Amino acid sequence: MDSIKKLTELFAKFPTIGQRTAGRFVSYLIGQNKQEMDELIKAIQELKNNVKLCSFCFNPYEADGTLCSICQNVSRDKQLLCIVEKEADLASIENTKKYSGLYFILGGMVTLRKIDGSNLRITELKDRIANGKFTEIIIALNPTPEGKSTSLLIEREIKELSTLKPLTFRLTHLAQGLPVGGELEYADEETLESAFEGRK
Amino acid sequence: MDSIKKLTELFAKFPTIGQRTAGRFVSYLIGQNKQEMDELIKAIQELKNNVKLCSFCFNPYEADGTLCSICQNVSRDKQLLCIVEKEADLASIENTKKYSGLYFILGGMVTLRKIDGSNLRITELKDRIANGKFTEIIIALNPTPEGKSTSLLIEREIKELSTLKPLTFRLTHLAQGLPVGGELEYADEETLESAFEGRK
Amino acid sequence: MDSIKKLTELFAKFPTIGQRTAGRFVSYLIGQNKQEMDELIKAIQELKNNVKLCSFCFNPYEADGTLCSICQNVSRDKQLLCIVEKEADLASIENTKKYSGLYFILGGMVTLRKIDGSNLRITELKDRIANGKFTEIIIALNPTPEGKSTSLLIEREIKELSTLKPLTFRLTHLAQGLPVGGELEYADEETLESAFEGRK
Amino acid sequence: MDSIKKLTELFAKFPTIGQRTAGRFVSYLIGQNKQEMDELIKAIQELKNNVKLCSFCFNPYEADGTLCSICQNVSRDKQLLCIVEKEADLASIENTKKYSGLYFILGGMVTLRKIDGSNLRITELKDRIANGKFTEIIIALNPTPEGKSTSLLIEREIKELSTLKPLTFRLTHLAQGLPVGGELEYADEETLESAFEGRK
Repeated sequence: MDSIKKLTELFAKFPTIGQRTAGRFVSYLIGQNKQEMDELIKAIQELKNNVKLCSFCFNPYEADGTLCSICQNVSRDKQLLCIVEKEADLASIENTKKYSGLYFILGGMVTLRKIDGSNLRITELKDRIANGKFTEIIIALNPTPEGKSTSLLIEREIKELSTLKPLTFRLTHLAQGLPVGGELEYADEETLESAFEGRK
Repeated sequence: MDSIKKLTELFAKFPTIGQRTAGRFVSYLIGQNKQEMDELIKAIQELKNNVKLCSFCFNPYEADGTLCSICQNVSRDKQLLCIVEKEADLASIENTKKYSGLYFILGGMVTLRKIDGSNLRITELKDRIANGKFTEIIIALNPTPEGKSTSLLIEREIKELSTLKPLTFRLTHLAQGLPVGGELEYADEETLESAFEGRK
Repeated sequence: MDSIKKLTELFAKFPTIGQRTAGRFVSYLIGQNKQEMDELIKAIQELKNNVKLCSFCFNPYEADGTLCSICQNVSRDKQLLCIVEKEADLASIENTKKYSGLYFILGGMVTLRKIDGSNLRITELKDRIANGKFTEIIIALNPTPEGKSTSLLIEREIKELSTLKPLTFRLTHLAQGLPVGGELEYADEETLESAFEGRK
Repeated sequence: MDSIKKLTELFAKFPTIGQRTAGRFVSYLIGQNKQEMDELIKAIQELKNNVKLCSFCFNPYEADGTLCSICQNVSRDKQLLCIVEKEADLASIENTKKYSGLYFILGGMVTLRKIDGSNLRITELKDRIANGKFTEIIIALNPTPEGKSTSLLIEREIKELSTLKPLTFRLTHLAQGLPVGGELEYADEETLESAFEGRK
């Protein structure tokens, strides 16, 4: 296959990118000079060589050592653990600056094809919990069908741990309700229900 | 002014309708036969003549008596009061079938132009509360800036009542958080914050 | 049926309006005072009583006489006839101020259900053409499947006229091509084809 | 700068890509294994090494020789030249399968910052025309303000050629008008004007 087609095909696998935009990416690169293309190649190579996954939370990082900057940070609260699907969710939560505990990146969701969670880091999660001293574990998954199935699976797995030693933490979930700026009139029924049920 | 222009102008004041759609409404009516136009005229006339506002909650209704069907319903819980902005919000909440108390339609929101709430039914609300035996009053306003200002105003007014007699009800608000189907990655910061703060 | 439901149902038949917006219209009217509702009722009544269809082109109007203001206008070019589907299309063309001839409103399109054009003013159109002295007849229908089927039907019917007397006019169609502000890259194939075929 | 930031920055320069999507691209790559990253690196390297611009029309290609597959194709009509802004436009026109002549990629548009066309291949275009035997030259630029300014500039430059030798080709433009599926009622005024002016 020629390189234009090959590269278009690879770009079309990028998240949210279709065939047409992939083609525009290739056109864009063709319009760049050799030096600019080398810069891109080099950046991908360095990503490949330098980025590691944190040995505790699986967050990608590229410093020395085996822990990411959050897990290394002595001022973070080691008694809180927040379970997220992927690093983009971790980044969103960090942006709010309202959470100062640790994270654990699950690496995916239960899907119709992988209903047993074999694509998730369940074993590692149980290991972190068994060896930690958490007072609260927050399940911060999307309030989507996949997120809810995943949440149920995790809860079951975590509860199994209690057969080994008594669990001393609270297990919490993010609040569901009306989003900021939302309107009752246009809210879907289920959101309005959870806003009512969670009132306080 | 001729009737085409006049009617276009009146339709253009309907919510969400601009000049162009108003014009299409008039074209549509011109295309109707006389009998169909009479039917529309009659329906508006009956609306004008028959619809009353409930003497307790201000919900429009057209039965006999002075109370709407909700306020008349003996099986509704008279110890719960839910304050909403407008009847469309009441209808949304009724749709969820999760609330069985009474309502009070405030009739608007605090706006930048009417910052004192003089366009709202504050006096009537205080009267209902002073004469009721509520155990919970739910402020169910949109989590928008207007909704929050209105909420603050209502809370202050309600607390003033306590100088007359001790208040025995809880004052609650709908939960804010991630809407059903939402995603952490795309949630705005403030929504994610409230989802975190309201976790349980 | 009560008047709220009845009126909601009638508004939901308005073009582009669904059940929910129809409900908002009714709420809006309930919020109006009696005088404002009377104003709306009166405007619809006057529309019903005063608006006539032009005896030549079927454009709605409400002056004295049997012709609309365009057909009455002595400075319009009586040798040009522009066939449109509906008055909104006539209004769009008038807005461009580039056409100074007469119009004929066909009153609809060929549809899958009415494939014979029995819902259109074909007879009246043929009458206007047979009795006119046109040098050009412009078929100004939407370049949609319905518009194209309708166009074919009209052309066939117009050509039948030539068995009675020789036709002396040109039959033209609006140009198809790239819309102003459009982009080749995103144009659909058929539009780009017609832009190519119509190049000059 | 670390490689995550660096690569995010480079992806954010891709057409239509913002900071957030660029970040998702990087996350996606981190989730790939080394072999998949190598495949991407290799494809970009081959693009850099193999892709040339056609010595006649500037279309990128990667075969042997100095001409792209279109310019090499003996069955293409060498008397037709179609001037386009960029290869995506060429690809769109090829998709219609209605044009069998040659192309010339201008490499950009007149912009407010480059009003003199110094960023365009004007010299090369004049060279191709002076040395060709064209019967028609089609200016196939977007009907946008930039496209129209560019079109004017090209026409002026082409006409200058006639001081050297008599020009024997027609200079044409793509048709402007209603796009397929468009509606008169919603067409912008200028599009409707050109549909009227170009009627036939």
